[in-house]
Amino acid sequence: MKTCPFCETDEERLIFESKFSLALLDIYPVTRGHTLIIPKRHILKIEELTKDEIFDIFEVFNKVINALEKFLKPGGFNFGINIGEAGGQSIEHIHFHLIPRYRGDTEFTDGGIRKVTMNFIDFEKEDFKSKWIKNRLNENEIEKLREFLIKNI
Amino acid sequence: MKTCPFCETDEERLIFESKFSLALLDIYPVTRGHTLIIPKRHILKIEELTKDEIFDIFEVFNKVINALEKFLKPGGFNFGINIGEAGGQSIEHIHFHLIPRYRGDTEFTDGGIRKVTMNFIDFEKEDFKSKWIKNRLNENEIEKLREFLIKNI
Repeated sequence: MKTCPFCETDEERLIFESKFSLALLDIYPVTRGHTLIIPKRHILKIEELTKDEIFDIFEVFNKVINALEKFLKPGGFNFGINIGEAGGQSIEHIHFHLIPRYRGDTEFTDGGIRKVTMNFIDFEKEDFKSKWIKNRLNENEIEKLREFLIKNI
Repeated sequence: MKTCPFCETDEERLIFESKFSLALLDIYPVTRGHTLIIPKRHILKIEELTKDEIFDIFEVFNKVINALEKFLKPGGFNFGINIGEAGGQSIEHIHFHLIPRYRGDTEFTDGGIRKVTMNFIDFEKEDFKSKWIKNRLNENEIEKLREFLIKNI
């Protein structure tokens, strides 16, 4: 049986605990203060979160962002989640990354979460505009999406 | 007066509208189906979202993820937000990116949202382990964070 690193909480990394959530410092922080906000329940998908858990995650998020702003003075944040293998999810128990950002922490500031699909070599070799145009859906595809979304309210 | 691209909705990119939120196809999609989920109100910070708006965003998120899975068959997703200038936020009206991910859409699958701080040259030249160790907070810093978080419930 595999153990879950978020169900067996590492107390040394725990900075806050609420009724439904934990805030843990990431063990491989990409910047100083990189924190994971995690539902206590071992959940694989966002759609499994209850209303109470969703609100609680946002409350903990707001609390932690205030604390990190006070002590580490970042110039911004990224907040987000990796879903599924192709999305880079490495642990089944869902976890939101709160990544403080500092001026100069990258040579390529723009983009934020847009950078997830880039190869590091892309910056030099790719024509971004043609990539974006290639990725746009056509009218037929957009219409199918709209119809499905309306019908499945 | 500057106009806001999300307050003046581009109908061609709109795929779903709920009571409090819009789902718009990104005009510069980093992958096919890249969608923005946006509160209708012109809000700068996540903490300004009401409970109803937060829950609505998650409902729209679940709905859109189902539609994208059905029509585009991605192998995963990234979902997240850029906050502040250093976080890559380029438009003041907050917007959550929902980025479908496909096997092979990058040569460097791992990491997902962790890639936000990387320079594209890092992959070859950096020693990631030493970077992570450098980014870890010390015991004193962790204790200060914990105290602040407990006191400010």
